[in-house]
Amino acid sequence: MAKVDIGVDEFASAALPALRGTGLLLVSASDRLGPNVMTIGWGLVGNLWGLPVFVVFVRPSRYTHRILEEAGDFTVNVPARGMEDAVSKCGTVSGRRTDKFKETGLEPAPSRRVRSPIVRQCIAHLECSVVYRSSIDESRVPEAVKPSAYPKGDYHDVYFGEVLEAYADEDYRERLP
Amino acid sequence: MAKVDIGVDEFASAALPALRGTGLLLVSASDRLGPNVMTIGWGLVGNLWGLPVFVVFVRPSRYTHRILEEAGDFTVNVPARGMEDAVSKCGTVSGRRTDKFKETGLEPAPSRRVRSPIVRQCIAHLECSVVYRSSIDESRVPEAVKPSAYPKGDYHDVYFGEVLEAYADEDYRERLP
Repeated sequence: MAKVDIGVDEFASAALPALRGTGLLLVSASDRLGPNVMTIGWGLVGNLWGLPVFVVFVRPSRYTHRILEEAGDFTVNVPARGMEDAVSKCGTVSGRRTDKFKETGLEPAPSRRVRSPIVRQCIAHLECSVVYRSSIDESRVPEAVKPSAYPKGDYHDVYFGEVLEAYADEDYRERLP
Repeated sequence: MAKVDIGVDEFASAALPALRGTGLLLVSASDRLGPNVMTIGWGLVGNLWGLPVFVVFVRPSRYTHRILEEAGDFTVNVPARGMEDAVSKCGTVSGRRTDKFKETGLEPAPSRRVRSPIVRQCIAHLECSVVYRSSIDESRVPEAVKPSAYPKGDYHDVYFGEVLEAYADEDYRERLP
């Protein structure tokens, strides 16, 4: 399937509903640890410092966190309709013990400009380079949020990725999850 | 003009291109300081803690910063085509010395659920309540960004607003900037 460039705003139109629904696939790879894929339901897209950015929230306990710290780049992938089981599995097992690509049949495919691969079966992709990083400050998180979001006190690190590439399958609109 | 509910994702489709173009209008009002409107070109939209959120970046030197700290809520407004001059003016003068509503002919109109008003002439609106706040950490900002974004070392505070309402004029699609 030929991939066509789309703007980050068009990517957002596809990605935001998926983010709230099935989830998106976040992939990061370092030379030492290789690639890992995890499901995300939280994220932000927009503009900062005049740069198109996608922001991901990753708990320090996650295997992806270790990889992201080494890699400094990531991809965000919109799954196609029908990939719900694979996406669900990527959100429940850890890449520390399992090769989730092998486990799910998802395949890493080369990116255009970053080290982290994309997911071949997905229909839209962002390639991002981390330009800023912060951490969620426990003391400022609303108490109402803590029981559901932080039952283990595992506050997210926040990675701001500059969007370097945004592209999609030509027919992605017909295959949205 | 009747306002119809839209989802936050539909709002994003209208707002993200405007954010990168003409700009959006951020309004905040406190009981003590009244309403102020400022133009924003930077912002993020998405999902955090299962909540729809819009994130704004406001420098401590801004009049809006003082109001936001008191108010705890804000609205984000997509201007209509033809409002470019007013939006430009709201980005260049300070509400500390000028009533920008009076100056531009823009009118504050009551919101549905927050204290901060919307801008009557705008075509799409978000009402947000601040649920989290952080500050840009100078030591982590890329050096390449500093000359253009922070020539005065005036690093942003970052306000995460939970989206409580998202609505638009029925014909907003034909009137986008």
